[in-house]
Amino acid sequence: MAEDCIFCKIAKGEVPAEKIYEGENFFIINDVNPVSEGHCLIISKEHYETIFDLPSEFGKELIEVVQLHAKRLIDEGKAEGINIVNNVKEAAGQIVNHFHFHIVPRKKDDGKILNLRDKK
Amino acid sequence: MAEDCIFCKIAKGEVPAEKIYEGENFFIINDVNPVSEGHCLIISKEHYETIFDLPSEFGKELIEVVQLHAKRLIDEGKAEGINIVNNVKEAAGQIVNHFHFHIVPRKKDDGKILNLRDKK
Repeated sequence: MAEDCIFCKIAKGEVPAEKIYEGENFFIINDVNPVSEGHCLIISKEHYETIFDLPSEFGKELIEVVQLHAKRLIDEGKAEGINIVNNVKEAAGQIVNHFHFHIVPRKKDDGKILNLRDKK
Repeated sequence: MAEDCIFCKIAKGEVPAEKIYEGENFFIINDVNPVSEGHCLIISKEHYETIFDLPSEFGKELIEVVQLHAKRLIDEGKAEGINIVNNVKEAAGQIVNHFHFHIVPRKKDDGKILNLRDKK
């Protein structure tokens, strides 16, 4: 556990947050600033700063969690597509330095486009 | 192999493309429309339409390929951060219906932001 890491505190239950899924090495919470309805985060229980530090043995479980949760959003009609995003380091927009995948539900008519745009 | 799938044709060598990495189940090519220098794609050798169809046993290798390649871009000074993106289905911007992860090199001063913006 890293001191002052909000995701570590949520993992340990020191900061309350609704875990919408909890497995062996990952849990899921809703993003506090969702870019679309249902935007959630798959977070490692242990503190790994980025995907570079994640044990690759967790890869199978990570894929299974993505499949289970993202597919459910589609099956339940809450999404027609999903953007799965992992930002590595601050230069790429990583805000919390604890490994997490964004799961962003999308719909054909949501008027959004995922892109790298110039900062305003 | 799916008919008329460009990534299947590249995987089988029927369409020429420089493979900058080739492993057991994945290979890497540069994106033909890079959003930043070094933007490349990790592609499954076999045809899986989305991450939902990918055997989860491939997860370990997928994480290792990300770690190897994305970390190398940073270690070599070609990036200060990385966006890892997987678009699932057309509604989320998937253009080629064959599983692939985008690896997008970022720099602090690149003037870009990864976001869901409204279409113009």
